[in-house]
Amino acid sequence: MIKAYIEQNKQKFLDELLELLRIPSVSADSRHNADTARCAEAVKASLLAAGCDSAEICPTGGHPIVFGQKIIDPNLPTVLTYGHYDVQPPDPLDLWTSGPFDPVVKDGKIYARGACDDKGQMYMHVKSLEAMIQTNSLPCNIKFIIEGEEEVGSSNLGAFLEANKEKLKADIVLVSDTSMISMDSPSIETGLRGLAYMEVEVTGPNRDLHSGVYGGAVANPITILAKMIASMHDENNHITIPNFYNDVLELNSQERTDLNKAPFNLDDYKKDLQVNEEWGEKGFTTLERTGIRPTLELNGIWGGYTGEGAKTVLPSKAFAKISMRLVPNQKSSEIAKLFEKHFISIAPPSVKVKVTEHHGGEPVVTPTDGEAYKAAALAIEQSFGKKPIPTRGGGSIPIIALFEKILGLKTVLMGFGLDSDNIHSPNEHYGLANYYKGIETIPLFFKNYAQLKTNQ
Amino acid sequence: MIKAYIEQNKQKFLDELLELLRIPSVSADSRHNADTARCAEAVKASLLAAGCDSAEICPTGGHPIVFGQKIIDPNLPTVLTYGHYDVQPPDPLDLWTSGPFDPVVKDGKIYARGACDDKGQMYMHVKSLEAMIQTNSLPCNIKFIIEGEEEVGSSNLGAFLEANKEKLKADIVLVSDTSMISMDSPSIETGLRGLAYMEVEVTGPNRDLHSGVYGGAVANPITILAKMIASMHDENNHITIPNFYNDVLELNSQERTDLNKAPFNLDDYKKDLQVNEEWGEKGFTTLERTGIRPTLELNGIWGGYTGEGAKTVLPSKAFAKISMRLVPNQKSSEIAKLFEKHFISIAPPSVKVKVTEHHGGEPVVTPTDGEAYKAAALAIEQSFGKKPIPTRGGGSIPIIALFEKILGLKTVLMGFGLDSDNIHSPNEHYGLANYYKGIETIPLFFKNYAQLKTNQ
Repeated sequence: MIKAYIEQNKQKFLDELLELLRIPSVSADSRHNADTARCAEAVKASLLAAGCDSAEICPTGGHPIVFGQKIIDPNLPTVLTYGHYDVQPPDPLDLWTSGPFDPVVKDGKIYARGACDDKGQMYMHVKSLEAMIQTNSLPCNIKFIIEGEEEVGSSNLGAFLEANKEKLKADIVLVSDTSMISMDSPSIETGLRGLAYMEVEVTGPNRDLHSGVYGGAVANPITILAKMIASMHDENNHITIPNFYNDVLELNSQERTDLNKAPFNLDDYKKDLQVNEEWGEKGFTTLERTGIRPTLELNGIWGGYTGEGAKTVLPSKAFAKISMRLVPNQKSSEIAKLFEKHFISIAPPSVKVKVTEHHGGEPVVTPTDGEAYKAAALAIEQSFGKKPIPTRGGGSIPIIALFEKILGLKTVLMGFGLDSDNIHSPNEHYGLANYYKGIETIPLFFKNYAQLKTNQ
Repeated sequence: MIKAYIEQNKQKFLDELLELLRIPSVSADSRHNADTARCAEAVKASLLAAGCDSAEICPTGGHPIVFGQKIIDPNLPTVLTYGHYDVQPPDPLDLWTSGPFDPVVKDGKIYARGACDDKGQMYMHVKSLEAMIQTNSLPCNIKFIIEGEEEVGSSNLGAFLEANKEKLKADIVLVSDTSMISMDSPSIETGLRGLAYMEVEVTGPNRDLHSGVYGGAVANPITILAKMIASMHDENNHITIPNFYNDVLELNSQERTDLNKAPFNLDDYKKDLQVNEEWGEKGFTTLERTGIRPTLELNGIWGGYTGEGAKTVLPSKAFAKISMRLVPNQKSSEIAKLFEKHFISIAPPSVKVKVTEHHGGEPVVTPTDGEAYKAAALAIEQSFGKKPIPTRGGGSIPIIALFEKILGLKTVLMGFGLDSDNIHSPNEHYGLANYYKGIETIPLFFKNYAQLKTNQ
């Protein structure tokens, strides 16, 4: 009956999502603040339309949080669904084949910024609720917390959780903001890496100089920054920050063997990315490098003249954005401190450096032995016809650690995206099949979870 | 009498220069092509107004060249005055305290892009001609070649010289596009470094990736570029490109001793630039590093996310602009080839690299034993009251080598700028005293030169 409802409403579900994708809710860019606010309104309206008893826009120090709920019986279990309506900046714009906020459906995929991350995945939950309500099959209570700052570090969510513990009371958090291996190899992520995101500024002379008049006699901040960056990985691509690996939880050989059982073909991987050779920490496989090992990545670098043609400048400043992915039991704030201390220590006396911390997040491991994971695994087996493989995701959702710390809640990461969806990149997309499969699977999770909780 | 004419016309000379500085003739930026063309027209009009018999705009493959002349007697010597009306891009705009193309006079200095380099210095010659004409004291013939592509490598000037050898026939080239040590220590540059300017592109994966999902397993082009740049100077800041120093003309110890006699105070230098420590090739002084040693400088770098806030991207590409200053007897095209070969050779197999060459120029040494140098030295002594010190300039004016190669002409570099004029930087300026002193000195050069040539 639910399946029939979904089948009949496919076009409507798609049109509504496209409408949401047209709103450029780029949380990192303050020029889009009005769009981001408009998007929160649209999410609130969609929750009410889907059948929530109530929905509200909760102001924060940054972009607002949308909260909604449908309580059918206080004695039944409650699922807290988390998602986010903000999106990554769309740059570089010239690499998009269609406008990032002009969604198009092509070859069975929706192309738009946020198509997968996370508007598409978040909206599956809204439509699943609608389907359950319309078919009278919602088996437990549901609460929604849809935030607007996931892409900028969820910096106001912790305070919101602290202030609304009663309102957010639930039994489990359900999140679709991750990916599975493929539609043929469905999987559930059981861990996420944490994040420490730094910005550095290197200052040489107090003003831009003529590189002919001063070059060779004054430290060039780009050259120095390059040397500093270069020194942060050794010849085995280990990170050289002292004490960086101190708290890294090392997996035993059985755990590593299990992890490497996930379907993965290095040749296909290289072919997809068009690289001749992979790169990474010596002694680990690609799955390990992205799943259980911490990393240090350059997200951006700039300095000097970057326009058309040639300018013979010796710039005053050079900048970089550098982020580190963390694994259990590393702590974001400690790693940020280690980075800052190290970066300052390796700066030669010919330059001055400044280090600022952007948002961070803690690594998490989600349990595979509770009812929620079992309910999700069974739901996927029911809809995909295959048992899901547990995997470790490389990305970070800082909020997951907060749910546990502040609300005492475990999370199940039931994501339907694919690594090839180009999230955070030009031409982000989300498969129509993934979208509809998600809407079909989520009600199965609710059914399974309610049954398992009742049989406890 | 000339001095009186200059004194009476100071305000007019200033107002006319300010008018010229209002035209944003940025040759590197094609959005300014109309401005650059308009500037050429203004220069042509100024030559005619100053007293040239004829002046014309000569089209080239790029920005036009302005040619003008005043022939008083074919039997008299002819001075070919070279200058340029194009300017460097004004970025970064936010560091200017007044608009780069809204010239203002403050504390006895003219602030504007091009105030010194080279509109201000070039226009001294136009006003000197006017003063000589108005006072009936022009002692020899004068030709002007004022180009619009000096800041982008003068790439069309060689062909123009080849095609106009007869028209450009002269005895000496006079250029004011360099600096002197100070108004108290006037100097004449007797050498200029050459230039090879490269742009590099490093490609990792074929698209921007999520740094959480792929980070640690795929080569990050920024990290790789940083490692490549870092490797290009060794621990003594020697350049590591094989055979780079092969053709460098080493000065003997007497020559080095003489060079280091120029007034220079390292503490003042560091204080002016607000750096705690100088930087450079081990075994050489600052004057040597900027005068007689080749360098490799990063002029720009960019890649990944450079906007506000944080974006967790592993970019597909990273770029840099890298230029090398060359000394006699290095050759620009050979050094460019050595760079390209080396850069490709040090790229790891996990990335692809592309190297493009921007403009280049050959290093030059100008003679100090001819009439032109003597005439210039005497003119400066007459107007400044002090004998000028011969110095080696760090910058490059590629055209100087071409004048010798194509026209067989030597050059005298009688520059009135100061190293502290912020050319190529925000808040470029030119002292009013320098401007007027230049207008006063140039006619003295003409007088001395005509006398020395006649007494030959």
